[in-house]
Amino acid sequence: MADYAPNCGYEVEATARLLGGKWTLLILYYLAEGKQRFGELEKLLGVNPRTLSNRLSKLEAAGVLHREGYAEIPPRVEYSLTEKGRGLIPIIEAMSAYAEHWMRVEESTA
Amino acid sequence: MADYAPNCGYEVEATARLLGGKWTLLILYYLAEGKQRFGELEKLLGVNPRTLSNRLSKLEAAGVLHREGYAEIPPRVEYSLTEKGRGLIPIIEAMSAYAEHWMRVEESTA
Repeated sequence: MADYAPNCGYEVEATARLLGGKWTLLILYYLAEGKQRFGELEKLLGVNPRTLSNRLSKLEAAGVLHREGYAEIPPRVEYSLTEKGRGLIPIIEAMSAYAEHWMRVEESTA
Repeated sequence: MADYAPNCGYEVEATARLLGGKWTLLILYYLAEGKQRFGELEKLLGVNPRTLSNRLSKLEAAGVLHREGYAEIPPRVEYSLTEKGRGLIPIIEAMSAYAEHWMRVEESTA
């Protein structure tokens, strides 16, 4: 097992908390496919715009996504993953494989 | 990217939330090395027993760890990872590698 504790424990926990945020995984999933406009994300996620805006701001502040505004009429805003954001993809893939195997097994025996 | 959304999104999110819980990563880290007694975990983590007990119960309920009580004097209680718990280790390792690279870079430029 990788030596992440205790000296690096805080950073690992911060990573886990970042990914545990409501909507975060789905946002990262859709952005992994390429940049998206605000309205597209809203439709894909089926989330209210206020919640989406709040979550996107937090992810931008965390440095995992980039917001680009274009001075058009109507104004266009696009979101894309930064390099730090793309670095999360292998973690999400590992969680996806785990969820597929373990979280479904649980359901079927419930 | 693995196809985890939208049909499997809930399970992946549940995995992320599980790992995002305070103390969870450190508990899993120490249990990855082998079973531990309650008092040992308490010492290793430097956490108060009430918090530890609460967190261990949640992880037991989630099926990732196993609690074994021995009728000795004084009573002995040992915790170990289940197979479902060991399955989380590759995810934690991926998060550890990420944190090492990205969360520290951030610190040094702050």
